[in-house]
Amino acid sequence: MAVEEKQETGFVKDIRKQSVDFPGWYNDVVRKAQLADNSPVAGTMVIRPYGYAIWENIRDPLDELIKQTGHENWYFPALIPLSFLQKEREHVEGFAPEFQLVTKGGGKDLEEPLVLRPTSETMIASVLRDYIQSYRDLPVLTNQWNNVFRWELKARFFLRTREFLWQEGHTFHETATEAEEEVARMLECYRQIAEEWCAIPVLAGRKSETEKFAGAQYSTAIEGMMVDGKALQMATSHYFGENFTRAYDLTFTGRSNERQFPHSTSWGMSTRMVGAVVMAHGDDSGLQLPPRIAPVQVVIIPIFRSDAERHQIEAALPGVLDELDDIRVKVDWRDERPGFKFNEWELKGVPLRIEIGPRDLAKGEAAVVRRLDRLKKAVPLGELALTVPAMLEKIQEALFERARGFREKHTVRLTSLDAVVKFFDTEIGFAVTPWCGRSEDELTVKERTTATTRVILPGSGRPEGPCAICGRPAVTDVAWGKAY
Amino acid sequence: MAVEEKQETGFVKDIRKQSVDFPGWYNDVVRKAQLADNSPVAGTMVIRPYGYAIWENIRDPLDELIKQTGHENWYFPALIPLSFLQKEREHVEGFAPEFQLVTKGGGKDLEEPLVLRPTSETMIASVLRDYIQSYRDLPVLTNQWNNVFRWELKARFFLRTREFLWQEGHTFHETATEAEEEVARMLECYRQIAEEWCAIPVLAGRKSETEKFAGAQYSTAIEGMMVDGKALQMATSHYFGENFTRAYDLTFTGRSNERQFPHSTSWGMSTRMVGAVVMAHGDDSGLQLPPRIAPVQVVIIPIFRSDAERHQIEAALPGVLDELDDIRVKVDWRDERPGFKFNEWELKGVPLRIEIGPRDLAKGEAAVVRRLDRLKKAVPLGELALTVPAMLEKIQEALFERARGFREKHTVRLTSLDAVVKFFDTEIGFAVTPWCGRSEDELTVKERTTATTRVILPGSGRPEGPCAICGRPAVTDVAWGKAY
Repeated sequence: MAVEEKQETGFVKDIRKQSVDFPGWYNDVVRKAQLADNSPVAGTMVIRPYGYAIWENIRDPLDELIKQTGHENWYFPALIPLSFLQKEREHVEGFAPEFQLVTKGGGKDLEEPLVLRPTSETMIASVLRDYIQSYRDLPVLTNQWNNVFRWELKARFFLRTREFLWQEGHTFHETATEAEEEVARMLECYRQIAEEWCAIPVLAGRKSETEKFAGAQYSTAIEGMMVDGKALQMATSHYFGENFTRAYDLTFTGRSNERQFPHSTSWGMSTRMVGAVVMAHGDDSGLQLPPRIAPVQVVIIPIFRSDAERHQIEAALPGVLDELDDIRVKVDWRDERPGFKFNEWELKGVPLRIEIGPRDLAKGEAAVVRRLDRLKKAVPLGELALTVPAMLEKIQEALFERARGFREKHTVRLTSLDAVVKFFDTEIGFAVTPWCGRSEDELTVKERTTATTRVILPGSGRPEGPCAICGRPAVTDVAWGKAY
Repeated sequence: MAVEEKQETGFVKDIRKQSVDFPGWYNDVVRKAQLADNSPVAGTMVIRPYGYAIWENIRDPLDELIKQTGHENWYFPALIPLSFLQKEREHVEGFAPEFQLVTKGGGKDLEEPLVLRPTSETMIASVLRDYIQSYRDLPVLTNQWNNVFRWELKARFFLRTREFLWQEGHTFHETATEAEEEVARMLECYRQIAEEWCAIPVLAGRKSETEKFAGAQYSTAIEGMMVDGKALQMATSHYFGENFTRAYDLTFTGRSNERQFPHSTSWGMSTRMVGAVVMAHGDDSGLQLPPRIAPVQVVIIPIFRSDAERHQIEAALPGVLDELDDIRVKVDWRDERPGFKFNEWELKGVPLRIEIGPRDLAKGEAAVVRRLDRLKKAVPLGELALTVPAMLEKIQEALFERARGFREKHTVRLTSLDAVVKFFDTEIGFAVTPWCGRSEDELTVKERTTATTRVILPGSGRPEGPCAICGRPAVTDVAWGKAY
């Protein structure tokens, strides 16, 4: 194993400083790390291969979890008749401002405009009416991977664009209990993806009435804290009760032969997660990718000054790559200086860099450098197969622990409106307070701080002391934060 | 290994007879095998989990081939400004009748209508202008998995719907040679997916001028013969030369420092492949799935008449499932008669059925039945791990060989227009003839038979004898067929 360890000096890159201009930093990192780029169509973006590969590495384990929990992938049409969307009152009120309408097809005006799906509750309820007759047909557990369209006025890479990619699960159950269990089960899947794959610790819990999904009885979400202290809602899971099934007259014959409405749910996680990974782990040098979702886990940089040295490294490489069989490795042979390459792969957040030069080879070693802290270790070539996976595992944990430490450092418990106002004036992070649950309080806080309730902390029960905002009896603890 | 083998009798199912009403049979199989269903939106369909799982099993190996050949997945916006599409004259003329237009967004009329992508050449050329400066930036090898929209007047499940799923590859090269090699390379990938995964033998070659993609210099395609003798175009790969790059003013600085236009290509395979699998292998009992793409490769049907017998099977099952570790297995414990289950899994095309009853268990065996020919074999339980994968492999080959035999039986070589007309009047299949290459001949044949040229047979060189249609000197052999 390693003996030599030393700290390297950093490099300055052509991106704005995170601490000075976070939104500017975010834009620079997304574009310069080649995750995504502006598109020629207002409000949309182009996802470039490096960004798409991160999405694939989040999508695949999530798809596996979704299948393991008994769901099946369907595909439903993207264009939904306007009248379908108008059947659930709250839903249409929530989404109508974001509609994009198809009014012409095949050279003719359509009789009824078609809406590009902002989400598919209405389409799926309309279709599944034909499949659900009896309690024996329940539960129906559907999922689909697709693109959705919401007319956003201010676009931000991955966080808010007029088209984005996601999965949307939609399920139908005989009883409220089963549906509510489903809502919790899928939130837990999202927590796993966020924490175990993306290394982002989350608060998971219910949203307030104000913050819930249009048409839901209640919504739950996972929320992460970004490096600027703001909250990012990373996935949601909603309980609809009978709201949608009543609106779509979707009924089944129950066990006692009576007509009943199934209880339904929906839940989704999107390409927004790529943005979350950037904002939760990045630093002034650029991206920092958790090894489990990094498209390139290890980059190998050959260091040579002559053709002879180059040949020496070329000869040693097959053995090195053999050692790294199960790892996503890239060898960077480009005709550029090593320093340029170090910079670029740091910007792209590759967790480990291996430098191999003639002096390393003479000692039968390679220099392995962590993106996390630039810690450099000499590792014998024959031990790479053991050492590198262990180092990647450690980096995965370290990123999570660092993000958790950051969140804990920036989470305070407060008991008065004044303290909340002062906090959001001068600090960044989450404020946890006792709360009575009234939306008037949310309005008050929002007006004075721009912060909103993020999630009601689960298991908080009836907290001690009165509501921090209005002094009425508190019924729960809630986390406040400035949200994306 | 097996000793006992016997032929079982068939079952009649509630689907139209293939030989009497092929389109009706196709519709019935697609719906009753639960591959897809009508959607409430005209011209579109709902892909159900069983159909989507087949698609996933085609998509995944294709994605792997696309990556292995050096391409990267991107995601480009689905909505394309109308003006982008109007820049390449042939392209817009070909696709304009199929446009679906978004004219309103966020409650307002858009200044410029957005077209739901029928294909993305125009968007991708517009975006990649910014990435391609020098010959060093080439080739750019992109792919994307997405949904596309074409206003079809007559919808058919999987074959022709107003929205469908596919991948579209778009590449840009320094030289014509490289681009043409790319076109051939991707056609070969499609041939592999069609033949090695879907067990459908294909003719691969160039399309005629009449049949090429709107905007291409030439198109190539793979064409399969369905059980009704008709041709299905299963994937295409196009060479654009400089057509699109000139139209979008996409240039690069070449090796001698002059501005040049890259040579571009595009290629796509879609959910149409699911329809191909149905129509190439199905029979009066329903679907017949090649094992490599079957969502369920083996279904186990427990046969019992008492609780005691049931328990006996339950106790033996873990051992059986252990043997079938790498196989996609489903155990059907539903409360239905075995005959009902046999029928249903035949309809769904599951390649192998394993029946396990107390008598089988007493002999330490299970009865394994092939969907292909209902051949039944008794296999010792301890040999399932060896026997079942070998049987699946054999079925995969047998389906391909059967389809190839069928195609050969229904392909004739003809040398006169009269013979061609007579063939398509009385027979089904492909007619191969010498041809001079003039589109007037295609018109003549189409008017008299509805058949069109499918592909120019590669390597046919200058054939013997004159053009079968008009008597002018022939330059090539071409396959004629009635096409979907």
